[in-house]
Amino acid sequence: MKDDLARKMDNLSIGAIRALVLDQTGKANSGHPGMPLDVAPATYCLWRYFLTSDPANPDWINRDRFVLSAGHCSALLYSLLHLCGYGLSMDDLKSFRQTDSLTPGHPEYGKTKGVDATAGPLGQGIAQAVGMAIAEKALQAQYVEGKRLFNHYTYCLCGDGCLQEGISQEAISMAGHMRLNKLILIYDANQSTLDGPTTDTMTENVKTRFLASEWNVLEVADGNDVASLISAIENARKSAVFPTMILVHSVIGFGSQNAGSHKTHGSPLAKDDAEHAKFVYDYNYPEFTVPDLVYQNFREGFAERGAKARLAYEEDLKKYAVEHPEDYARYLDAINGEVEKYLPEIPTFDENLKEATRVSSGNFIAAWGKKCPFAMGGSADVAGSTKTTIPGTPAFSSEHPEGRDIRFGIREFAMTAVQNGMLLHGGLRTFVGTFFVFSDYCKAAIRMAALEDLPAIYVFTHDSIAVGEDGPTHEPIEQLAALRATPNVTVFRPADAKETWGAWEAALANKKGPSALILTRQNVPLLASSDPESVKKGAYSVYRPRHHRPKYQILATGSEVSLALDAAKILEKKYKIRLEVISMPSLECFEAQTPEYKEKILHLPYEKRFSLEMAATYGWGKYAKHNIGLDVFGKSGKSSEVLKAFGFTAEDIAERILISLKK
Amino acid sequence: MKDDLARKMDNLSIGAIRALVLDQTGKANSGHPGMPLDVAPATYCLWRYFLTSDPANPDWINRDRFVLSAGHCSALLYSLLHLCGYGLSMDDLKSFRQTDSLTPGHPEYGKTKGVDATAGPLGQGIAQAVGMAIAEKALQAQYVEGKRLFNHYTYCLCGDGCLQEGISQEAISMAGHMRLNKLILIYDANQSTLDGPTTDTMTENVKTRFLASEWNVLEVADGNDVASLISAIENARKSAVFPTMILVHSVIGFGSQNAGSHKTHGSPLAKDDAEHAKFVYDYNYPEFTVPDLVYQNFREGFAERGAKARLAYEEDLKKYAVEHPEDYARYLDAINGEVEKYLPEIPTFDENLKEATRVSSGNFIAAWGKKCPFAMGGSADVAGSTKTTIPGTPAFSSEHPEGRDIRFGIREFAMTAVQNGMLLHGGLRTFVGTFFVFSDYCKAAIRMAALEDLPAIYVFTHDSIAVGEDGPTHEPIEQLAALRATPNVTVFRPADAKETWGAWEAALANKKGPSALILTRQNVPLLASSDPESVKKGAYSVYRPRHHRPKYQILATGSEVSLALDAAKILEKKYKIRLEVISMPSLECFEAQTPEYKEKILHLPYEKRFSLEMAATYGWGKYAKHNIGLDVFGKSGKSSEVLKAFGFTAEDIAERILISLKK
Repeated sequence: MKDDLARKMDNLSIGAIRALVLDQTGKANSGHPGMPLDVAPATYCLWRYFLTSDPANPDWINRDRFVLSAGHCSALLYSLLHLCGYGLSMDDLKSFRQTDSLTPGHPEYGKTKGVDATAGPLGQGIAQAVGMAIAEKALQAQYVEGKRLFNHYTYCLCGDGCLQEGISQEAISMAGHMRLNKLILIYDANQSTLDGPTTDTMTENVKTRFLASEWNVLEVADGNDVASLISAIENARKSAVFPTMILVHSVIGFGSQNAGSHKTHGSPLAKDDAEHAKFVYDYNYPEFTVPDLVYQNFREGFAERGAKARLAYEEDLKKYAVEHPEDYARYLDAINGEVEKYLPEIPTFDENLKEATRVSSGNFIAAWGKKCPFAMGGSADVAGSTKTTIPGTPAFSSEHPEGRDIRFGIREFAMTAVQNGMLLHGGLRTFVGTFFVFSDYCKAAIRMAALEDLPAIYVFTHDSIAVGEDGPTHEPIEQLAALRATPNVTVFRPADAKETWGAWEAALANKKGPSALILTRQNVPLLASSDPESVKKGAYSVYRPRHHRPKYQILATGSEVSLALDAAKILEKKYKIRLEVISMPSLECFEAQTPEYKEKILHLPYEKRFSLEMAATYGWGKYAKHNIGLDVFGKSGKSSEVLKAFGFTAEDIAERILISLKK
Repeated sequence: MKDDLARKMDNLSIGAIRALVLDQTGKANSGHPGMPLDVAPATYCLWRYFLTSDPANPDWINRDRFVLSAGHCSALLYSLLHLCGYGLSMDDLKSFRQTDSLTPGHPEYGKTKGVDATAGPLGQGIAQAVGMAIAEKALQAQYVEGKRLFNHYTYCLCGDGCLQEGISQEAISMAGHMRLNKLILIYDANQSTLDGPTTDTMTENVKTRFLASEWNVLEVADGNDVASLISAIENARKSAVFPTMILVHSVIGFGSQNAGSHKTHGSPLAKDDAEHAKFVYDYNYPEFTVPDLVYQNFREGFAERGAKARLAYEEDLKKYAVEHPEDYARYLDAINGEVEKYLPEIPTFDENLKEATRVSSGNFIAAWGKKCPFAMGGSADVAGSTKTTIPGTPAFSSEHPEGRDIRFGIREFAMTAVQNGMLLHGGLRTFVGTFFVFSDYCKAAIRMAALEDLPAIYVFTHDSIAVGEDGPTHEPIEQLAALRATPNVTVFRPADAKETWGAWEAALANKKGPSALILTRQNVPLLASSDPESVKKGAYSVYRPRHHRPKYQILATGSEVSLALDAAKILEKKYKIRLEVISMPSLECFEAQTPEYKEKILHLPYEKRFSLEMAATYGWGKYAKHNIGLDVFGKSGKSSEVLKAFGFTAEDIAERILISLKK
């Protein structure tokens, strides 16, 4: 009898979720009702009976995470956030997809309380969830009694679209390999995508694919069967080794007269069809109306449960603080991102140093990684080249969860999205690395980091045609422009060891968006007048002719700063043409300076300025009339020969400047 | 006895390939010998006994294709091309990885005869091979007796790296679904990647993953076992339904004292170790020396076989020309890319037309796709939105190989790389479509198309914040800059229906590189003075004040051209400030014009020019001092409200221009 009542309440609550989905999409006349309608029971069961989170403290570090990888199901998430008491009002639901509402088209992290990750671009949510699960496992191992500090599940909900995206396989394979047993993925197999039935494009056996990728697989035959759903989630939580995928068979647009058809996917149901659906759900309330009983169900079954768990955590934390004061202090620093306390001192460099900036970066990582216990990072199978290994710590694995060196495999896209997940989780400061040309593979997840205001760090090495033998497929040209044009991404291309350390400091100080360090493969000389501190200003003078006002300026970045210096000296010596050299390690930092500072640096007229960067000139026209760069693909050959072939020697640059001046 | 001799010859030939790999990488002191050494027997067996291609006619349309997805194995491919007589001399091999040699670090299509695809960025080769196999299957079905014209295998060689990349799963799932039975993938499972043993990062069951993805899977226990390799390839060729993966177990760096270790992966073997390896191979010849017997083996077993097959094809083609003259003429047009013959006429548009440029593009595709029998394309599950369906033709599938509408699934990256493979194959003119923001997912394959000089076409719709409700994850900002900065990519952002038709014509006329069409979701008005023909010049005047010389210019693209016109009219009427409006649908086409034309268009001083584009301003500084754009992420809301919120109304633009002028 009691069970019977409980099931009745489940059905009413599921009806409420579905009705709110219909009401939101209907009122907005926009959105994607199909999948929310079919996956509502599974999501309800998860939230009502398992997900532990405190709506009054949605940022609680030890909450269970919920990643809606199928971001177009936003109406479903908003319904739950409303019902569970995350502060999303009925009026907010009524403003679904309206300008500046708390209920935008796709869930936005940082905008709506209770949204654990931004979603929309498919597949990335799975990788972000993997990152959260990695963070939980890693953090547990980084403290004396880590399981008292970090001990939660990471849940993710996805559809067919996410699993068609390649990033899903990268993330799945990584998660299985890493034995992320507290990661639970609910796969809503509704057999439909936007353009038609899934069978039009995908007939693979998803279950077998997950088994092959070392996952535990459970199956629920009927997506409306609450008891089976609960039992599946229960079983998934017991997995001691493998992550679990719960395959839920469902009918898209359940309740609609078009149920089962992709027509319910991308557009709201017609008004009468929505009414029909509510009839199917036995949900007999007016639009945007939920009976108190349902609120009570969520209050008792979710909010109170979550609040209790959080209070217990806080109580225990107080004890933990007494029992392990150092550990506790470190925990606070970690979750507050107090990275400044753990910065290494900038060493004194030999003035004759010639060092690749990737090596300088590697030295920084070694020093910082040693000092900062919550520093963690890795690369996509090129750690030996990108110098992104924290020495003295093992590779992160199920055997060594304390390892802070992550071996992502040749999976650049997932690596980048996994970092996002780790940062969304909190408690770690991270970096990932690969060859700069492969930032193309990472790009969509870099954009996601920028959207989520995450302090992700990218160590992108092998930054120009100076890569040499590997040839044009490995030589970046347009990648600088692509990142600089992306909002909220700060790009650093340091000129030498000093600037590299400065760039790392600036990147770590940037807590509201991603930073990319663009580093050389080849050695570059230490510059007499370079300055780590000035990197933060984005641009500064590194050479002015003595006793004379310069007549021209060269703005250069990275390895081209020393080249500009050499070219300037040739022009001065041979032709008495006096140039100032500006090192411009970060255009974004420069743009953030005062107009006075900017004018001070760019004090000569536009026509008197040259830019020099061994990459696409696109973008430099703002700063200099004469742009020296490379607007074609590179070539394979010895580095020095390739540079020569494209005219990147001091003599050639001097000559090109001369020719420009004669025009 | 005869068999015994044959096996002896096999071993000697395999030894020669391996020795040439060691000699090339040793002399260059650069390259990746590990995998070439272990996979040499499999590759030899494939080429010597199966691959049918005529070295004297390496572009023969009906040759078997060979895609080296593991592009770092270039030394292996060059060894084979040398031995088979593709015109690669011993001196070429001695110039391995040297500037401007025919043997660059990674194989480059178009540079070295016999190289069927550029490779290096991992995983893409598999997708390119899938594209070739799609092309073969499609072309067979597009002609009366298509199997006489197109009937070959597509082989691909990959390692662990390619299979870790997510694009591999997208491509594999697609190939299995499409039943590409003539696609054969050799997977060299040498259990090693650059940073260490594969087990460090990947313990999934690859075999099961392929089985789940509807592939036929064969296994060769010993990568040196010639008889098993031959038998596996023989069996793979018999597959009537599914594509086949041959999993070859091998030992990386076979022959080296470090065999089995990742140390042999990324650097040449030490001199004495290379000698040791040759001793293991029983290969007792000096460096860069191959006995005549081996050349003879390849001549008889490869070149003559290939030449014979090609001659037979040519003979039959003559008959075909007589039997099916129309079909044959069409075949010639198709393989020669004579797309001009099949262009639809530009319709007369209603002067009051308001139409989204995605719709205009859809109309072009419908007209062109109907007229041009070798037009083929599709989208990543958003065909209804991108308007990229050729009407009247079924979706391409095993049941309907004649279908010219490709349903790629939600697999943007593979879609883009598959198009590259189709174009590498020849005989088709293709396009692919998705939302512009997801060009990020495609980017690495767009770069590949640019490197390969392929006439790929991208239909990227939903090109700005005017997308509206879907919000910032779906609103492109930096994507225009990313594509424009990429060498050899031509970007078109047409302003109205006329310009869209012009852009399509220009894209089809561009046969040496990819073209991207950037199209609106929302309606735009037909402009009185827009002109399809002028699109090809990249920029032209669409509005000049009457009876007055303009004092300022606005350069605008796409939907902002009509906005610029409206703003100009406000400024003229209200303030007597006279502006000329330049439509600039393609910066690349404009850059290709004569200096005179460029000066004619940009006839006012730099300070007097404004740019207007609802995207990152990055890049516009070259053309105009005042850049109006959007350097932050968008937001979710009704399109018109979002535009208003960011100041993209005629009134707001007029005011922003006014303020700039007052400064």
